[in-house]
Amino acid sequence: MRKRLFILQLLLTAVTFSFAQNSYELYPSNWWVGMKYNKIQLMIRGNDVGKHSGFAIRYSGVTLNKVNKFSNSNYVILDISIAATAKPGTIGIRSVNANGKQSNFEFDLVPRRKGNGTSYANGATSSDLMYLIMPDRFSNGDPSNDRVPGMKDQTLRRDTVFNRHGGDLKGIQNHLNYFTDLGVTTLWLNPIIENDMAERTEHGYAFTNHYKVDRRLGGNEAYRTLINAAHAKGIKIIQDAVYNHVGIDHILFKDQPDSTWFHRWPKFTQTNYKDQALFDPYAAMVDKKIMSDGWFVTSMPDWDQSNLFVQNFLIQHALWTVEQFGIDGWRIDTYAYNDLAFMNRCNKALYDEYPRISIFGETWVHGVPNQSFFCENKYTIPYKSNLQATTDFQLLFYGIKAACNEKFGWTDGVNKLYTTTAQDFLYKDPMRQVIFLDNHDLPRFYSVVGEDTSKYKMAFAWMLTFRGIPQMYYGNEILMTGFTSPNDGYVRQDFPGGWDGDKENKFTAAGRTEKENKLFNYIKRLANFRKTSSAIKTGKLMQFIPVDGVYVYFRYDAKQTVMCVMNTNAEPKTIDLSRFAERMNGYRSAVDVAAGIEFKLEKELQLMPVSNLVLELK
Amino acid sequence: MRKRLFILQLLLTAVTFSFAQNSYELYPSNWWVGMKYNKIQLMIRGNDVGKHSGFAIRYSGVTLNKVNKFSNSNYVILDISIAATAKPGTIGIRSVNANGKQSNFEFDLVPRRKGNGTSYANGATSSDLMYLIMPDRFSNGDPSNDRVPGMKDQTLRRDTVFNRHGGDLKGIQNHLNYFTDLGVTTLWLNPIIENDMAERTEHGYAFTNHYKVDRRLGGNEAYRTLINAAHAKGIKIIQDAVYNHVGIDHILFKDQPDSTWFHRWPKFTQTNYKDQALFDPYAAMVDKKIMSDGWFVTSMPDWDQSNLFVQNFLIQHALWTVEQFGIDGWRIDTYAYNDLAFMNRCNKALYDEYPRISIFGETWVHGVPNQSFFCENKYTIPYKSNLQATTDFQLLFYGIKAACNEKFGWTDGVNKLYTTTAQDFLYKDPMRQVIFLDNHDLPRFYSVVGEDTSKYKMAFAWMLTFRGIPQMYYGNEILMTGFTSPNDGYVRQDFPGGWDGDKENKFTAAGRTEKENKLFNYIKRLANFRKTSSAIKTGKLMQFIPVDGVYVYFRYDAKQTVMCVMNTNAEPKTIDLSRFAERMNGYRSAVDVAAGIEFKLEKELQLMPVSNLVLELK
Repeated sequence: MRKRLFILQLLLTAVTFSFAQNSYELYPSNWWVGMKYNKIQLMIRGNDVGKHSGFAIRYSGVTLNKVNKFSNSNYVILDISIAATAKPGTIGIRSVNANGKQSNFEFDLVPRRKGNGTSYANGATSSDLMYLIMPDRFSNGDPSNDRVPGMKDQTLRRDTVFNRHGGDLKGIQNHLNYFTDLGVTTLWLNPIIENDMAERTEHGYAFTNHYKVDRRLGGNEAYRTLINAAHAKGIKIIQDAVYNHVGIDHILFKDQPDSTWFHRWPKFTQTNYKDQALFDPYAAMVDKKIMSDGWFVTSMPDWDQSNLFVQNFLIQHALWTVEQFGIDGWRIDTYAYNDLAFMNRCNKALYDEYPRISIFGETWVHGVPNQSFFCENKYTIPYKSNLQATTDFQLLFYGIKAACNEKFGWTDGVNKLYTTTAQDFLYKDPMRQVIFLDNHDLPRFYSVVGEDTSKYKMAFAWMLTFRGIPQMYYGNEILMTGFTSPNDGYVRQDFPGGWDGDKENKFTAAGRTEKENKLFNYIKRLANFRKTSSAIKTGKLMQFIPVDGVYVYFRYDAKQTVMCVMNTNAEPKTIDLSRFAERMNGYRSAVDVAAGIEFKLEKELQLMPVSNLVLELK
Repeated sequence: MRKRLFILQLLLTAVTFSFAQNSYELYPSNWWVGMKYNKIQLMIRGNDVGKHSGFAIRYSGVTLNKVNKFSNSNYVILDISIAATAKPGTIGIRSVNANGKQSNFEFDLVPRRKGNGTSYANGATSSDLMYLIMPDRFSNGDPSNDRVPGMKDQTLRRDTVFNRHGGDLKGIQNHLNYFTDLGVTTLWLNPIIENDMAERTEHGYAFTNHYKVDRRLGGNEAYRTLINAAHAKGIKIIQDAVYNHVGIDHILFKDQPDSTWFHRWPKFTQTNYKDQALFDPYAAMVDKKIMSDGWFVTSMPDWDQSNLFVQNFLIQHALWTVEQFGIDGWRIDTYAYNDLAFMNRCNKALYDEYPRISIFGETWVHGVPNQSFFCENKYTIPYKSNLQATTDFQLLFYGIKAACNEKFGWTDGVNKLYTTTAQDFLYKDPMRQVIFLDNHDLPRFYSVVGEDTSKYKMAFAWMLTFRGIPQMYYGNEILMTGFTSPNDGYVRQDFPGGWDGDKENKFTAAGRTEKENKLFNYIKRLANFRKTSSAIKTGKLMQFIPVDGVYVYFRYDAKQTVMCVMNTNAEPKTIDLSRFAERMNGYRSAVDVAAGIEFKLEKELQLMPVSNLVLELK
């Protein structure tokens, strides 16, 4: 069959075609000249395109290597090589349909973005402060796209947590100065790709068409505009990738090329959510299979990532996104649930094309061994992940949360933060790990600490001075509250002031209460200090064993030493500084960064109850 | 100075010596021909021996390479090489004292034990069941040594926990048949080396003379006799090594060669007990130093193991012990507190000489990363331990204890046992880890589970069927109780029946209550099944993710499959067996090993509340 097609291709190369192509979809929608990734699989989707024959391309430097067909005749996938010599232009792809009529598909080969991946795809690093936004819930910059005719979810009810609220990319763009003022340097947006699902579309994790940014957020054009505007202000953009699954209304699930693109089960089978099955030396095959191949939820079919067509579809989309929009890095959703060999291949394609890109994966697991298994680590084991870093759930669950909420004990309270940090020897590069207090799936940290502002400030000071990339969640800075019970909608409330007519506008000092302003300014001061602090951005960490509920660590390099002192006790404490001589020797005074006060260093230091002093030593 | 001594040695070689030598001590007390370790440092201790000159040896194949002197003139250490050609005999070592008188020291070079290390030093393996005994508290086989004249601790009060009780090595030897009957194959004794301390001598961890077995336990001769008798019955002996510290009345501390043999501090400085400081990438130097060089307790001076004389003294003693007594392996006390580079050198000397020896270290730490750092692991990090295995505190604290005492939850109860086991991928060889429910420092497990016999049986069944080397503690089998509060003496009570005239004798079925006999027989049945079960002794482990408080694991090899089902719920449960097909396929019936009943396998299995079924599949 394949041989016959190939002969037909040769015979048909000189024929001209004149058929309309607007009933067909091409994925990727375009490609670039001069990419390292220059062997692509072009999916053509349309009525009976799989019954076409005689596929042919006549374009200098572009070769059609293979035509792949599927049991579903609505698909054909063309293996195409693009030589380094190929010039930008529109490639004509010809074929003959089942009735003998000729078709012509057009596919654009375009010049690369300016900089060829060196002036974008810059990656978030430990020098950044990342701010996570759920686009539907932050700010409504364009009310005209709140409801999009023809899309399934026509809700628009801000008084419920699961319906759409109307936030969009323009709303985010409108607040770029707000971010810069606060000290934020990087935005991570919950997924912005089309979720044309009937309900629960606010979170964005149920893709229905990879090549469309959701029109309710403003579509592809608004995304490009936002990114250009952000870059112009020195703000990077991290995109949220969902490789593991799609929305049940995804075009490729509703109309599957064949039976091998998604994991199928005799009856609905949910993943067991047990990452352990992937590294446990004693794991049962059935547990591994259910972990990786079970569906995340009923509405999200699980890709079969062992299928090379699926792999290529996803990798191409990732590369396409970076080049098309100029994003700076990826956050990968539900990392552990993917086919891990595929993840390595996918990550490598991105690293190869964009050497400075950053990629971190969501690892909602329990234990540093568990978490470090999924990223670059110090293990000599058969599976070696090439993922740069993870979302550091361990330093949250068994670190800062314990420091704030547990009584100090041999293995409790801030000792947990110390010991979990000490396990950093398992990571190849702990400085790439993303540290955070909360996100769209977790109770807001201000609620976690019982709305205790002292604890909250202590935690924020920690996050802004510790190792790794700090990530805050929209509204952290204005004391937004919320638990994931009764459901996670309650941690995804609107940012007050993001909508015209909002009673309160917490984007401005005037709109914030005194308490909120105090906290806002505390974060702002530390975040802006961070921006200029080489010790915090790229310096080393030294931590001292916590004593009596007091934890002392230093960030330092050849130019600067920053001392951080966390008193987790409800009482004031006095500490003898002689113990820290190896980092403090030679320094005579200290600037309390949050207070902006310089004082002379004495033999002892007085600590306020529940506090974290950030001291630049002089 | 050294050169001059060397010339004197040459001048004096032909002179004869006739002085008494009984006021001098030689360490080691003898050595062997044909050892790989054939360059020894012979310490001579005695009045002003350091002022002697002209040290010389005239013995075929034996060379005196160097004479080491110290600021304390009571010591001299001779570097001696023993060639492969050397014959057994008494080496004469001559010197001239400060008054010009000649001395002659005699040092025996003896033939090696039969088998040259292949018929002893056999190591404990996962095929063994180890039984830990505190010798003073098990059985008094020789009342004549209960008090030894001249020793500091003259207490003998069985109604107190800290005084001596009179148990001894003969008492252990008297019960070899008891161990064999129970299914025990290996004994680990708390230290048997002389503790000539004023008080708290019951535990044995404060050595005062490395080359003397405590005379209250029967001395060197009783130890040799016990080991020979044990070996004759196929029982191995693990000795408890304490490399880190000595008792404050140790000869080498009371009379130190110079100021470099023990860690000295301006004021008493106790270790911080924080293993983290040793692997934490961010550790402060001061924390590391206090961890390793601080004293364990005031009564136990901390060796400076960076001193090569100290290293050699300890290594030679270890080798001497194996060869002298024929022990099979070592348990190393307070492993993390030693100089870890020295530990590697010391372990290697033992592995080189005795390839089948087993060595495991005490690692009372929290976290599998922490624990695995101290033994052979899968890390590519600068410090690579060569220790075979550890005492697996993790599977106790975060495993079986949680399974017994915690309510089942996502990260709680038996899920902790599952997830901690899954972290075994960090170890090079998890099968060498020593698993246990309690020991001389921990609350007795029967007390930990609130004297709930069902929980206790479940835990024992786990220990006797899981991966690693199971270690029980004397009295486990007769439901001995005790907490470490008010002090650890309460977990070191006498074994009833170990002393003549004891009211109860729990070594015999007649002396045990019905409840005790039930438990005794339960352990005995499983332990003896274990003896013949290749699947448990050397087979693989497969564990299934716990569901609803029920945990299922298999031990299996080509010959045998053993299914273990742990129901941690207080209610009976019914489980569907189809999930376990990959291990159960082909089997039609099962033998309940504890009950001795064979039954046909159905689609489902009924489980009693709080139970662990051990099923040999047929």
